[in-house]
Amino acid sequence: MATFMDVHSGFVGVTETQLKEAHERDLAEEAAEGVHFERAWLDPDSGKVFCLSTGPSKESVRRVHERAGHPTSEIYEVSVDIA
Amino acid sequence: MATFMDVHSGFVGVTETQLKEAHERDLAEEAAEGVHFERAWLDPDSGKVFCLSTGPSKESVRRVHERAGHPTSEIYEVSVDIA
Repeated sequence: MATFMDVHSGFVGVTETQLKEAHERDLAEEAAEGVHFERAWLDPDSGKVFCLSTGPSKESVRRVHERAGHPTSEIYEVSVDIA
Repeated sequence: MATFMDVHSGFVGVTETQLKEAHERDLAEEAAEGVHFERAWLDPDSGKVFCLSTGPSKESVRRVHERAGHPTSEIYEVSVDIA
């Protein structure tokens, strides 16, 4: 299992409620891919969203986001993590 | 106190030890700005680093990274966070 950070653009002005709804759609789709979306951060001014997930591959993360209706091609496998 | 995600590029091939050293330099500089770097994630293949921090302003985060020797101008105030 690997860890991924992915980045979305264009979420300008999105509210916490709307981000939660988008996140819920990921959670509804993720099991089929063995992915789990752990956290998400939104900057509504720039429209950037960062999602932290675990899963078998970058491609599996990409498919979950695509099926949930917010595709991104900017997905990084973050193999080093400092907490 | 706000939460920030910042992004660095060019860390291709950086090791966990090297990332920890860079993070330690942030920790050594952060108190003067009232910033705290909480987590960092590295993709050594693409060279991307994501840092999660709290602090009073984007500018304060920028100054800590600059003094620590790894400046970035890509800093987002992530006012919405889903855990």
